[in-house]
Order: sequence, then C-alpha cells, then structure tokens
Amino acid sequence: MDPLTQQPVTPLRVRTTTTEEFNGIPHHVYPLNTRREDDGVVSIEGVRLTDVAEEYGTPVFVLNETDFRTRCRQLATAFRGGHHVHYASKAFLTVSLCRWIEQEGLALDVASENELAVALAADFPAERITVHGNNKSEGFLTRAVTAGVEFVVVDSPPEIELLEQVAAKLGQVQNVLVRVTPGVHVETHEFIATSHEDQKFGFSLASGAAEKATLACAKAEHLRLRGLHCHVGSQVFEADGFVLAAQRLLSLWPTVREGKGPEGSITLDTLDLGGGYGIAYMPDQEALDVDGVARDLLEQVEAAADRMGIAAPSVNVEPGRAIAGPSTVTVYRVGTVKDVETSDRTTRRYISVDGGMSDNIRPSLYNAEYDCRIVNRLTEAEPVPSRVVGSHCESGDILIADALIPGDVRPGDLLMLGATGAYCYAMSSRYNMMTRPPVVVVSDGSSRTMLRRETVEDILALDTDH
Amino acid sequence: MDPLTQQPVTPLRVRTTTTEEFNGIPHHVYPLNTRREDDGVVSIEGVRLTDVAEEYGTPVFVLNETDFRTRCRQLATAFRGGHHVHYASKAFLTVSLCRWIEQEGLALDVASENELAVALAADFPAERITVHGNNKSEGFLTRAVTAGVEFVVVDSPPEIELLEQVAAKLGQVQNVLVRVTPGVHVETHEFIATSHEDQKFGFSLASGAAEKATLACAKAEHLRLRGLHCHVGSQVFEADGFVLAAQRLLSLWPTVREGKGPEGSITLDTLDLGGGYGIAYMPDQEALDVDGVARDLLEQVEAAADRMGIAAPSVNVEPGRAIAGPSTVTVYRVGTVKDVETSDRTTRRYISVDGGMSDNIRPSLYNAEYDCRIVNRLTEAEPVPSRVVGSHCESGDILIADALIPGDVRPGDLLMLGATGAYCYAMSSRYNMMTRPPVVVVSDGSSRTMLRRETVEDILALDTDH
Repeated sequence: MDPLTQQPVTPLRVRTTTTEEFNGIPHHVYPLNTRREDDGVVSIEGVRLTDVAEEYGTPVFVLNETDFRTRCRQLATAFRGGHHVHYASKAFLTVSLCRWIEQEGLALDVASENELAVALAADFPAERITVHGNNKSEGFLTRAVTAGVEFVVVDSPPEIELLEQVAAKLGQVQNVLVRVTPGVHVETHEFIATSHEDQKFGFSLASGAAEKATLACAKAEHLRLRGLHCHVGSQVFEADGFVLAAQRLLSLWPTVREGKGPEGSITLDTLDLGGGYGIAYMPDQEALDVDGVARDLLEQVEAAADRMGIAAPSVNVEPGRAIAGPSTVTVYRVGTVKDVETSDRTTRRYISVDGGMSDNIRPSLYNAEYDCRIVNRLTEAEPVPSRVVGSHCESGDILIADALIPGDVRPGDLLMLGATGAYCYAMSSRYNMMTRPPVVVVSDGSSRTMLRRETVEDILALDTDH
Repeated sequence: MDPLTQQPVTPLRVRTTTTEEFNGIPHHVYPLNTRREDDGVVSIEGVRLTDVAEEYGTPVFVLNETDFRTRCRQLATAFRGGHHVHYASKAFLTVSLCRWIEQEGLALDVASENELAVALAADFPAERITVHGNNKSEGFLTRAVTAGVEFVVVDSPPEIELLEQVAAKLGQVQNVLVRVTPGVHVETHEFIATSHEDQKFGFSLASGAAEKATLACAKAEHLRLRGLHCHVGSQVFEADGFVLAAQRLLSLWPTVREGKGPEGSITLDTLDLGGGYGIAYMPDQEALDVDGVARDLLEQVEAAADRMGIAAPSVNVEPGRAIAGPSTVTVYRVGTVKDVETSDRTTRRYISVDGGMSDNIRPSLYNAEYDCRIVNRLTEAEPVPSRVVGSHCESGDILIADALIPGDVRPGDLLMLGATGAYCYAMSSRYNMMTRPPVVVVSDGSSRTMLRRETVEDILALDTDH
C-alpha cells in the first residue's frame, strides 16, 4: 500500500511504453483522486478535466486542494508538529495557499519582501514565518522584524550588522538562525561530503566563517541566536545527506554555546535542515519516503545530541516541491502534430501544445522530465517516438524531449503533464507575450479560479505609451 | 573606426583584467553615447545613471532610443530598404518600440497572437507584419488575415489546411512563405551542413516535406506562395551559413515554379533568411559586421539566381537581438558582498545585487556571459575573482559566473550589465515574487518610463482570494 494514496502500489512504476500503460494513471505522479472515468475522460476530485478546459480554457493549471492539504498533514505528523514544517513559498504561493497552510498548522518560509507581503496580506501569522535570502534589503528586514517573524536566517556578515541596526531601531529582539554551508551536497540518491562550498548562500563551517557568524549574532544585543540552518540539495530521496549535515551542524553547538554574548542572547534549540524532499515526476521514480526519512533523521539527531550530552534541538524542515508539486497538473490543448525525419530511417513526432517554456521553464532550465497523459479519451494506438513542444518562437521550447506517446494524438486533444505544482507557475514568464494560464482549484467535485488568466491587457497596463 | 559608433575601435576588445580597463567603457558592448563623466559617474545620452537609479529605483533597464534607432537605420541601409528588415518582436516589444520601428521604415515579425495584438494596438501597419509560429491557433490566423498582414510563414501540413480555411471564410487571399529547414546550423563562427534537422520548426528540404508544402500552398485557392523562409541559428557572426542556406532554398525555386496551382497562386519573389545576427556581449567579442554580411549575402543570392536563370528574389532578414540587445543596460544596486573560500587557498567574492534570474534568465538558461561596470564612481582597486549573483532563493541564480571585478565593490554601489536589451525583459519572470523592473528610455539628455515597475499589487490582482 502507498502510505499517502492508501492505494495498492501501482504497477506503473516503469517508463510507460505500451498503449495500455498509457491509458493508466500512475498515482504517485498525479494528484490524489485522479482517475479515468468510464468514458475515458480524466477527472481529479470528481471534476472532469474536459469540463475544466471548456470552462477555463487552456493551458490551465489544475490544483487538487485535498492533495495539497494531505501532504501538509503527512509532513506535520512525520516531523512531530506542523510548526516544524515550513512550506517554502518560492515553490508556489497564493493567498488561498497561505490560508490552507495556516489551517493545517504548518509554518511558512519566505525569501523575498513580496513573498512576505503576500503572506501578510493573507493574514498568515508572522510568528510562524521564517525569512530567507542572500540579499535582504533594509526595507525587507524592517518589515520582517516589525511584523514579528519567528526567524530571520542570516546569511552574510553585513546582514548581521544590518539586522542588528534594524532591530535596535525598532527596539525589538529578533530570533535568528545562522545559515551554514556544511559541505554536504546531495544529488538525488547520492551525497558528496566536501569541506568547502562555492555558492552564494551561508557561512562555511570548514573555513570558520560559520563560527564567526554565530559569535557575531551572540554579541549583537538585538539578536537572539536560536540555532543553525542548512540546505543540502534538491530532489533528495534518502536521509543520509540530511543526517550528515545535521551532525556537522551539531558539532558547532558547544562552540556556539561558549560564544560570549549578552545574557539571553543564545537559546540553542533549533536545527533547520532545509528542503529538498524529492518527488516522482516520472512513473519509474518514487518520492522520498517522508515517514521513513523523518524517523531516521529525528532518531539520528537525538542520538548525536545524546552522545554530545546536549538537549536535542527541534528539527525544522522546509519542503516546497514535496507539498505543492504533485498537487497539480497542467492541461494543454494539442495544436499541430508533425513528423520530422531525423535520419534516413527514423522520424520523430512533434506534438505542439498551446503553452510551453513560459509556463514551464524547468525542462529547458534543468533538463527536467515530465510525464503526460491524454485527458479527453482513451487511446488504442501504439506509442511512437515523440517530443512535446510549446508554441514559443524558440527551438529549445520543449516540454517533453523524448517519450513514447500513442500515435493517435491529434489536434484538439487535451494532454496533461503531471507534478507541475512547484516552480512552474512560480517561474513563469510572458515570453512571446504568452500570458500566464489560470490556476484552478478542484475540490470535492467542484472547481474555482485561484489565479485568473492573464491577458494582453495585463501586458499593456505596464506600457506607459499605450 | 567602428562603423556604427563612429569612434576609434576601442582597445578594450579583451577580457577586462586591470583596474584601468575596468574604469573604461567598451563601446561595442554598451549603448551609443555611454560615457564616464569627469566625476566617475556613467551616463548614457547625457543622462547620469545615478540619477536614473535615484528617480526610478533599482533594478532598472535603461534603453537608449538613439542606439535602437541607429541600428534600425544601419540594417535598413545594408539590406537596401527597411521593409526587408523585420524586427523580431520576441526579443523585446513595447508600444513605443513599434512606433520607432514604423518610423524607421522597418517591418515587424510577430510569433504569437499577443505580439500581434500589441503591434496593432500601437497602430503598426499590418501590411508590414510577418506572422511566425509552430502552433498558430485558428484565432491567431483569423486575426492575422483579417488585419491584412504581409506574410504568414506556414510551418506544418495542418496549418496550411487551417490557413486556407480561414482565408476562404474571410474571402481573402493570404501571402505565405514556407518555412524550410535547409540542414544548415550555425554556431557563432562555424556552421554545419546536414541533411536533416530534428526541430519543431519548418519543413525539411532533404525529406521532400518542403516541396510537398509548397505544392500544397500552390494548390490552395486562398493562399499565394511568395517565397521561402529559413533560420540558421543565433549569435551568428559570418555570412557563410546564410549563403549556404540561401543557395539550398533557391534550389527549390524551379520545382516550386512548376507546382501546379490556380492562376496567380505563386509569385516567387521573397527569400526570408531569418535572424541570428550576433552581438558583442563581452569586450573580447565583436558584433557581426552587418554591412559586410549584407553585401556578401545579397551578392551571393544574386549570383546564384543568375546561374539558375531566375530573377533574384528580395532578401528579408529578421534581426531582434542585433537591434534591441546593445541598446540597453540593466542597473542593479549591490547589497551584500561576501568572500567564500572555495579551497584552502582561494576565495571567490560573491557580489549580490537586487535583481537576478527573474530579470535575466539567460546566464542560467544558456550559460550566457555578461560584462559589468561600476556606475556610480571610478575604482582604484585591483580586480579579484568574483561572481555576480541575484537575490533569488536558488544557488543557480547567477548573473556573471566568473569575472575579475575590482575589490572595492561594496554595498550601495551601482553595477550595470551591458547588452541586456534582448531576451531579458522579454523572458522575465516573477520568481520569488520579485516583480519586473521598469524600462526607462533615455534620449537627448532626458529620461522617461516606457514600462512601469511591477508591484506586489500586480501579483495580487490575479489572486481571486485577495
């Protein structure tokens, strides 16, 4: 049984190659309660996607509220309380999403002043907000401290000085975490441990920069150092990398404790291990085992603290993709279908849809892979080597580079791409002036708009000569 | 002398490595009339960029109208008439830009319905518009034919059928070009000639698909085939690839002529060789020699036509980057500066600015390189190995990956990146809810807003729960 879907583990955990497989729905890639109705139409939460396409047009993002909330709950349980689970706004954020996250008892990470502004506009409780960023402006820090956010994660020496000034001016004491680069990089199932990290975020553990930063926080009168933060990678599937990073961070604990600061300036109780919880984009992938990883991680942190003779800190995590990603599909309408000879003996079918790199830059930017299914009917055709491309005036505008897709896909068909809830809308552009699709929420048999479709009027509204 | 800037060719056509070089302005990378004033502040067209930053905030795109118009004129002269030069909207388009292009006598390429809508909103004459796209909808084609665009460039068999239906319904005859993939790819200074092309655009010459497509157009009662179109690459610097593509396209001419169609359905007079005219992003690069390439290309096409005993066709070109790219700089304010140890003996300086991959995705997406200069003052410091990064919550958010930048760059300084006029604003996102910067036009000593800055209100305006 799949612990999340409560359904038998699907036999579809292989790359799809047959007509029959293509008519199936790999449940670990698509939102909860995605099914193919008797007439062949795909529905989510009882809402037929053909009806969504009809009512809202295409392309359209379709977000399953139940899926989103279920993943929030699973993570909250696994990490022993929603306040330890900080949803990473950068994956995707709206006013409604803030409310769901609040209702499910989770906390929120923001990494820009506007993300904070949207959270506050949604009345998200500031005391459950953590503030990130490598280049926070004075205005952003002032707004964060004024609002009373739980943590500011400090990232550079000038920022520690600036935050101290801001908090002093406001007469407040701000809880902070120090972002540390522990020299642990995780790439899906493997991790590498190094001593240095060449990246913009954080203070290096190996160079002594992290120790200096904690000391600077301890000495700052208006900062209270509560713990350390790190982030080991994206699309991580095992606990090992998190555990090693946690152990490395804990090794700094005794040193930090001895850091001389004003009374009460250090309360070491928090270890924030960041995000990176992997999801399944393709049928032959499996999402990170949230329950198993949480159990391993918490046990290992407790064991390490025990060996060191210190109280085990709270472990916070920052999933974004793992909550938002699988909740959503993008539905496109097929426009042109064209066979292109790629050599004297082979052809590739190019299936053009009415969106592209403006609503999903991830294939172009990260070589990300996506799965697709026909939405409006069953297929009986043999799969043929195909490429799903967008409508942009750029040959790199590719959504699925190389897949076997049934040979009867034709203009007018609807295709859905799975697991598009994270970093698709959030990174969307208006390239070729193709405006953003709407985001439609499906829940309990009905649908509604969460974000409306952009139009050319939104483009012209910025144009002062219009 | 540089033919465009009418200034001595700068000695700065090397990668900048010394303090003195860094205080210079490589004129072939930055807009016309960019200079460092006596007090060290950089101005464009007599407008001090410190004043622009003060008045409009940062980040900000600064576009030099004179530069943009000068490049339009140079291309129009080189290609014997502005109507042969089709500005590629996808690079960057606004209402004002449409007007400048119209005033300079150029034509316009659009690749989406919204690009067409903006051009028409700016009263750009439809008879100078060419319509591109691999997946044009019926609505888009209807709008194009109704408006009376000069050419529709057809790209797939179903589109030829659809366009014929659309034109028939409207009782009009639409001029068309057939997009051909001639098997010529150009990568900067080299080209490769193949027989097949594995891409979404066009009809293959080698497979016979191009011939079939021309025949289909010739037989369609409401289409008039006027010629062929191809596109050989981006950032091209030599004529050779264009010449070979032109020769290959011309080889189809006699066959097309014999295509049986209704009276008047073929008027072969146009060869559209697309865009790809390279510009200098870095001091050690030189832009394509527009005059030289145009001369070579036109001569070779005439010679080839002569050998074939046919009338030489008009040669159209589609520069976007070559007009918009060098006209613009992006001015950022430096936030944090941090030295990161990358090994036991070396450090890299991370300079964070207040924009990033949301306003310029090209370094992340294409490994594109950019040059930068300090705007607000002269420097006296030795350059140190540095990386210019943005403010996004992503370690790949890099604007300049590896450069020697003076060691005295500090928080509050203004940095400008050159040649950001093409594909930066056009591909910009709101990642991390960092809204789009404004585009400010400088001209003849004064400045004005062309596109206003986006705010969080623009984000919330789409949110139906706000």
